[in-house]
Amino acid sequence: MRAALMYGAGDVRVETIPDPTIQQPTDAIVRIVRTCVCGSDLHPYHDLPVSEQGTQMGHEFLGLVEDTGSEVTTVKKGDLVVASFSFQDNTCEFCRAGFQTACVHVGFFSAAQAELIRVPLADGTLVILPVDTDSELLPSLLTLADVYGTGYHAAKMAKVTAGDTVAVIGDGAVGLLAVLSAKQLGAENIILMGRHQARTDLGREFGATHVVSERGDEGIAIVRDLTYGGAPKVLEAVGHRPAYDQAVGIVRSGGVISRVGVPQYEEAPVGFGSLFGRNITLNGGPAPVRAYIDELLPGILDGSVNPGRVFDRTIGLDSTSDGYRAMDDREALKVLIAL
Amino acid sequence: MRAALMYGAGDVRVETIPDPTIQQPTDAIVRIVRTCVCGSDLHPYHDLPVSEQGTQMGHEFLGLVEDTGSEVTTVKKGDLVVASFSFQDNTCEFCRAGFQTACVHVGFFSAAQAELIRVPLADGTLVILPVDTDSELLPSLLTLADVYGTGYHAAKMAKVTAGDTVAVIGDGAVGLLAVLSAKQLGAENIILMGRHQARTDLGREFGATHVVSERGDEGIAIVRDLTYGGAPKVLEAVGHRPAYDQAVGIVRSGGVISRVGVPQYEEAPVGFGSLFGRNITLNGGPAPVRAYIDELLPGILDGSVNPGRVFDRTIGLDSTSDGYRAMDDREALKVLIAL
Repeated sequence: MRAALMYGAGDVRVETIPDPTIQQPTDAIVRIVRTCVCGSDLHPYHDLPVSEQGTQMGHEFLGLVEDTGSEVTTVKKGDLVVASFSFQDNTCEFCRAGFQTACVHVGFFSAAQAELIRVPLADGTLVILPVDTDSELLPSLLTLADVYGTGYHAAKMAKVTAGDTVAVIGDGAVGLLAVLSAKQLGAENIILMGRHQARTDLGREFGATHVVSERGDEGIAIVRDLTYGGAPKVLEAVGHRPAYDQAVGIVRSGGVISRVGVPQYEEAPVGFGSLFGRNITLNGGPAPVRAYIDELLPGILDGSVNPGRVFDRTIGLDSTSDGYRAMDDREALKVLIAL
Repeated sequence: MRAALMYGAGDVRVETIPDPTIQQPTDAIVRIVRTCVCGSDLHPYHDLPVSEQGTQMGHEFLGLVEDTGSEVTTVKKGDLVVASFSFQDNTCEFCRAGFQTACVHVGFFSAAQAELIRVPLADGTLVILPVDTDSELLPSLLTLADVYGTGYHAAKMAKVTAGDTVAVIGDGAVGLLAVLSAKQLGAENIILMGRHQARTDLGREFGATHVVSERGDEGIAIVRDLTYGGAPKVLEAVGHRPAYDQAVGIVRSGGVISRVGVPQYEEAPVGFGSLFGRNITLNGGPAPVRAYIDELLPGILDGSVNPGRVFDRTIGLDSTSDGYRAMDDREALKVLIAL
């Protein structure tokens, strides 16, 4: 099959490699119909050490079931399915508690920019999509694999509810879908902090009522002013340390900072002068996307939301390298790969 | 009046200073009947720089209203009252949200180890106690000023509920009252991490079902084993960095670390390897004790709880220095000062 491999920072090649095969009776093989490049793929694109053998990339996909192991019962050959970016049994105690990314058998996909993929724990991971492969909904359905569920997780962990005032930090795909999610959950005031007008314009369409392009102390002052002393719920969808500091700066006393941007830092202020003194709650983490697919699928199918609008460029698999470059140069918000 | 002043680390003296007076129409003057030494008073006892003028100490008291400003309406001369360790208007938006320690007019008492104290914002701060000054309940009622409400805050922020498994880090007065609070809120398994047997024995009487005296990796392994993979709710009642690390080590994926020990650190791990990767919630802060007094008072009055058992020594005001020394040497868990 053809597959994208990264050989080091900035070096993505599409090559022919052996097809994946069933290895466990709980596996499935999926022939990929749509995949994409994730903002988090840009981290290795910046700093992956050079290697001889290369490493497969990608964790978001939907496609047709090609083969199933003997113990797989919920999907069969020919089903159009979407997978969460993690695979999990979806039956253990952690999965039942709604934290599938903490499943005792959890793993994370990293080979979805390819024609075929092996899906471990297929019954706990794949969800059948009730559409055909020519559906116009495929881009939106693909967002269920990660970015929509991740934005939704930010809003859920912050317990966004009707009438809320919410600030979202970051105008990437996850930030914009955090806006959409906050809107779906009933937020009344949604402040989007971001600097790229094409993106913040989409954010307004998704439900942002205010856009703040200023950063640092200036941005903090504006949000604190807009919210009469701080936003009760802050959704942090960037992952860099300045975004954390911005979140601490704009959050209201007694409020919550819900993070879904993968932290590119390990230590940060949590003491009296930052979180503790003002009773701030810090939460979030890798989204248990599997838990949200059932909840978010109906809105896509009935057309009430269109999260697939975060894709602003479509390429073929052989152009994957161009897709990375376009996202890294911020020419594209999110690149869809159609096979 | 007589009052305790600290002139530097380890140097507490009781001296005669001018009586406080009404300064604002919302003030009251209270003649103190019971006060005490707090674990947090030991921080300046360790590191306060030497000063010429000294600084008054103490933030927990109950006593008789001696005088009130012209705008005070809820208490009158002769009432026996307890104060929260913070003073607040108890009417602003933050107070109404249940975060009185974030009140727009908040301040913190620091002159309660004395015969008299000025209470700003008396209507938002003082609560009438329906007992006489010779009541046996006074020690328990005094815990409403801080340590009981603080332990309760830890349990409330962690959303402890019926059937929960809770781990409490720290066997000081706050940790023990976090145990009592978790028990009151219905926790089924309460693991107390502490090393002082007299204290952990009291913790067992308050409701601890397990005591773990080991620290570090050993303690973490024991708690993870007892809880089949981590405690869903961890109440951190120490405030030193090793206690934070212990909390991160014992908390279950998807669980919560609720801190009420005042952090003696500002930065700590919060990234993928500590909180984020496992969807841990971190919260807590200075307890809005005022919010809890109404809720906790009935249990004391009807005798169903006896939080005053944390006091294991009673002294007079002139012996305050001995009280500090006894607590610092861990001869006493908490020292009551009777006037």
